[in-house]
Amino acid sequence: MAAMIELIQGGGVTSAKGYKAGGTYAGLKASEDGVLDLGIILSDTSATIGAVFTSNKVVSPSVTLSRERAKRGVGRAVVANSGCANCCVGDQGLKDATEMAALTASHLNVEPEDVLVCSTGIIGVELPMALIRQNLGNVKLNNKSGNSFARAIMTTDTRPKEFAISVEISGKKITIGGAAKGAGMIHPNMATMLCFLTTDADLEQGYAQDTLKEAVDASFNMIDVDGDQSTNDTVILMANGASDGDAIMDDSDGAAFREALTYVCQALAKELVRDAEGAQRLIEVMVDGARTKADARVAARSVANSLLVKTMVHGRDPNWGRIMMAVGKSGAEIDESKIDIYVNGIQIVHDGVSIPYSRESVVGSMSGADIVFSVGLNQGEENASAWGCDLTEAYVIENSAYST
Amino acid sequence: MAAMIELIQGGGVTSAKGYKAGGTYAGLKASEDGVLDLGIILSDTSATIGAVFTSNKVVSPSVTLSRERAKRGVGRAVVANSGCANCCVGDQGLKDATEMAALTASHLNVEPEDVLVCSTGIIGVELPMALIRQNLGNVKLNNKSGNSFARAIMTTDTRPKEFAISVEISGKKITIGGAAKGAGMIHPNMATMLCFLTTDADLEQGYAQDTLKEAVDASFNMIDVDGDQSTNDTVILMANGASDGDAIMDDSDGAAFREALTYVCQALAKELVRDAEGAQRLIEVMVDGARTKADARVAARSVANSLLVKTMVHGRDPNWGRIMMAVGKSGAEIDESKIDIYVNGIQIVHDGVSIPYSRESVVGSMSGADIVFSVGLNQGEENASAWGCDLTEAYVIENSAYST
Repeated sequence: MAAMIELIQGGGVTSAKGYKAGGTYAGLKASEDGVLDLGIILSDTSATIGAVFTSNKVVSPSVTLSRERAKRGVGRAVVANSGCANCCVGDQGLKDATEMAALTASHLNVEPEDVLVCSTGIIGVELPMALIRQNLGNVKLNNKSGNSFARAIMTTDTRPKEFAISVEISGKKITIGGAAKGAGMIHPNMATMLCFLTTDADLEQGYAQDTLKEAVDASFNMIDVDGDQSTNDTVILMANGASDGDAIMDDSDGAAFREALTYVCQALAKELVRDAEGAQRLIEVMVDGARTKADARVAARSVANSLLVKTMVHGRDPNWGRIMMAVGKSGAEIDESKIDIYVNGIQIVHDGVSIPYSRESVVGSMSGADIVFSVGLNQGEENASAWGCDLTEAYVIENSAYST
Repeated sequence: MAAMIELIQGGGVTSAKGYKAGGTYAGLKASEDGVLDLGIILSDTSATIGAVFTSNKVVSPSVTLSRERAKRGVGRAVVANSGCANCCVGDQGLKDATEMAALTASHLNVEPEDVLVCSTGIIGVELPMALIRQNLGNVKLNNKSGNSFARAIMTTDTRPKEFAISVEISGKKITIGGAAKGAGMIHPNMATMLCFLTTDADLEQGYAQDTLKEAVDASFNMIDVDGDQSTNDTVILMANGASDGDAIMDDSDGAAFREALTYVCQALAKELVRDAEGAQRLIEVMVDGARTKADARVAARSVANSLLVKTMVHGRDPNWGRIMMAVGKSGAEIDESKIDIYVNGIQIVHDGVSIPYSRESVVGSMSGADIVFSVGLNQGEENASAWGCDLTEAYVIENSAYST
């Protein structure tokens, strides 16, 4: 299907046609004036909405409200705050999320039920609604301010994460842009991260939801920082059809769009990992030859999640036994005596046993910012990639020194 | 059932009647002369054997061999080495494990199939059999040298772990002793740990296996250091009947013995956590009011395993939202609005919402070596405990500073 994907330099949630965004300082974080913490994205016209939420059983009422409204499949705007997760605060949480959406609707002159709400930050304290009431009206929206929104949703992130591409589908150029926030608590099953995707493609509602789910399964659900899962994770896709193309559904155009959307999601997911708390290196784990897609994913994730793998990357130690251990504990169908392992393209294990390799070359190649572990299971035809980051300091010192 | 349990000061695998043990330096670790790395336990007579092994699909041939032999339900001796896991070395691994057992049998004058083998250490390199052939005969066994065996199985452990108790069952005093090794990679499902239990009770074979499994489920499978699982984990129980009591089976005597065995396993499991790489504090998580035992266990483990909980303990930060998050992601049946949380006995959450508590008192109480989190789910009658340790340094600095 290989669609021709064109990167948009400096692109984000306002790259696609028909979107405005903005952010303001509301004082929700204990930070100096000027640090944005409240942001809005608005579609000029009603947009098809797809959304995926955390699987944690404890959820923020902001998620409860957005999940309900996203079921309608249409919407106009998203409001998001950082600094407070609006979670574990009893009945007050839903009242506050509802009011935040209503304030946004009134500011934008849209219907309250067309506004979704996202919150991220500390759990267990109520949203300071006085500050939100006072400052929400200060969010100035325009079609160039995607970056203000991206900055407004940051918590311990050290930089905003934005990405946008354009792609031609059936002769029409469509654009997909996104902004995301991450840092700690990132794990499969959508943990502590927010991502907002906007496209000017026209998407059929059922297709929008299904294709977002698939893109998330191949991106945000394949990354890991520390194995924890947040109460607030949300990925929202808005598709307003402003490109004037035909409605995309589950056919060959649908496959091309899905590929492009997955590309954007994977780019943002990798950015989340790169900027994870304490991370110095990105670990990409590519598993192929799995019997099923589920096996490929679980094996790739198990390696990317392993603290012992994360620490050996920090210590630049090609201790491949830890990769074997992680594949073995994953539950994927394997035959130990058929496993091949490559580090940055250099084969170090064949048929489950170490082969003579230049340790210096492998250690040298592990000095880069990106480390790729390829694991061939030689059991079938399925493959998957997962991404993680290294773990640094004390724990690491102990573990990375273990075999050297 | 509350059996009267009496601690045996300095006790270990040779506390029970009819056992000898010993250890020697064989040079398997890159360490100075005198550091023990090869040990043996011998029962004077044929013993009933129970055994539980790792669930990792990649296993050491030492495990393969011992698993097969343990199925017979009887045995005489265990030989264990540290420094090399004898794992991921192709066909050579099983040959070496088999030879190591044969050398031990010949040294002890017992049948080879009555010897089980355990290995721990680095994965992917072959056992230096020349050193084992040369040194195994130097293992001097006697009924006071349990400590030598406990030291011979250490890897990154900073101290040997031993424990023994006696208990009266149907008027007969029986003794249970054990030695274990741990450090990194400790996780539910038996990860990177070895444990050897000896008792002079007479145990019916099926009962020995079942009761060991239950004791392990309530102890070693409820601890966590870093979420990884080893290829070599093994718990072996030997019961030689030297106390001259009646054979214990699954009746009221069986319940008393199970309670005593679980007590020993939990004591050793906690020692493993206390001595985990980089650990400074023991975290005990007690969940009650769960609908099922499985729910209680999964919820307790999820809290004990959470890196964000581990880091908040290191930072002495009563950020209870992380406990809620961990309970929520566990999959246990919960109602957020019914959850109570206590830190070292001080209640900080009632019905899912923070209550006014003295933050200073709670932070102060978190300075101790043991931190107890009690979580009341208020859903049913089942309870479980899990144990973990704090996580230290860089990762921690980032996470423990997050809410403060």
